[in-house]
Amino acid sequence: MVQQFKTIEDLFEYTRKELEGKTGKISIDFAQHQRSSSSLDIIGNCLQEWLPDWFSHLSVQVAPGAHTQKFPDFTATFNGVPYDVEVKAWNYAANPGFDLSNFDSFLSDTFQSPSKLGARYFILAYTAFAPNSFQQGFKVERVYFKRIWELVSRSGKHPITVQVKKDRVYAIRPGNFHTKPEAMCKSYEEFIQGVYETFKKFPNKNLPFTPEEWLQQVSTYSIR
Amino acid sequence: MVQQFKTIEDLFEYTRKELEGKTGKISIDFAQHQRSSSSLDIIGNCLQEWLPDWFSHLSVQVAPGAHTQKFPDFTATFNGVPYDVEVKAWNYAANPGFDLSNFDSFLSDTFQSPSKLGARYFILAYTAFAPNSFQQGFKVERVYFKRIWELVSRSGKHPITVQVKKDRVYAIRPGNFHTKPEAMCKSYEEFIQGVYETFKKFPNKNLPFTPEEWLQQVSTYSIR
Repeated sequence: MVQQFKTIEDLFEYTRKELEGKTGKISIDFAQHQRSSSSLDIIGNCLQEWLPDWFSHLSVQVAPGAHTQKFPDFTATFNGVPYDVEVKAWNYAANPGFDLSNFDSFLSDTFQSPSKLGARYFILAYTAFAPNSFQQGFKVERVYFKRIWELVSRSGKHPITVQVKKDRVYAIRPGNFHTKPEAMCKSYEEFIQGVYETFKKFPNKNLPFTPEEWLQQVSTYSIR
Repeated sequence: MVQQFKTIEDLFEYTRKELEGKTGKISIDFAQHQRSSSSLDIIGNCLQEWLPDWFSHLSVQVAPGAHTQKFPDFTATFNGVPYDVEVKAWNYAANPGFDLSNFDSFLSDTFQSPSKLGARYFILAYTAFAPNSFQQGFKVERVYFKRIWELVSRSGKHPITVQVKKDRVYAIRPGNFHTKPEAMCKSYEEFIQGVYETFKKFPNKNLPFTPEEWLQQVSTYSIR
């Protein structure tokens, strides 16, 4: 089956149509004993590996990121234009629990390469079958295609949704974009303003630039 | 195949004999597309799930822990006596990288129930096949059966091998027990002395007991 997708949006529409409502299974085969996994960590990690592999199988031009722990997970090229793509997965029975980025790395990386703010997010919301039920496995309930500002809320305790521990910002976290999309940032500009305010509220002297310098740097980037 | 094991040591001997050198495979089957995983996180997590399941299959009397994130992973009963068992797995190409325990939880838990210090550790050292090689999967290279003091070294920078960040002890980590077993604690007593010294070196006012009180409490426990 060779699929041709003209745009990344076409790929998303196909992905949503094909994957929503489908069930899957993870198995470990070892020493003549097979076991299926319903563990949430394993399902999430496996799905994040599976998706780019499936895209390749659909003849999408996919190049893996240089390092699995680093942004982006991969780039996908449409019409000669490469797009940074991040894949996230979370247990749909709970609120989105994944990290969008470590905050300090996010500031450094986007200061150096503001184009990283243009990444596309494919997000899979799955449920696990009860570990002791007859059929083990998972179901992909929903598939989302988002930009970072559509995942982050401005209406919480901090200027954007972040995880704070002992007065330090650890990570940018998603808001409840699946239930309250209207509460997320409306635009790139609103998002970078929120990041700027968060950086100002929690100064970090280890970074070689000020909140103002960061904002100026990323404002030069024209999002497409 | 019904196996009868009189002691946990018998089970370990059988496990080592059966698993060392064996290869296995992890696959995710979803949307008519199968993918094998060679990702280290996934292999480690899957093996930690697989082992107690295999023990059950061998007719070992296994009861899962109350909570997957909590100690112990499971209990295994031999001759009417339940043993706390922890399963760890690590990539044999690197030094052991797993956490033995969060340090604060370890102090609280063992203060409350010193018997937790008697747990048995089944440790699987695996290697992953190169992600792009023809055959994907993993191989279990070695199987170890240890007590906590046989995993922790007294000869490092701190009184025992711990992970320290910003002047706080985060976790008890293994030393290189696989290459330098002679550098590990020789006894339960040496280990609790090392924990005590570490607690004294990094005081923690959130805990409702002093290093001296902790040492006295766990000294009452006669290890078997």
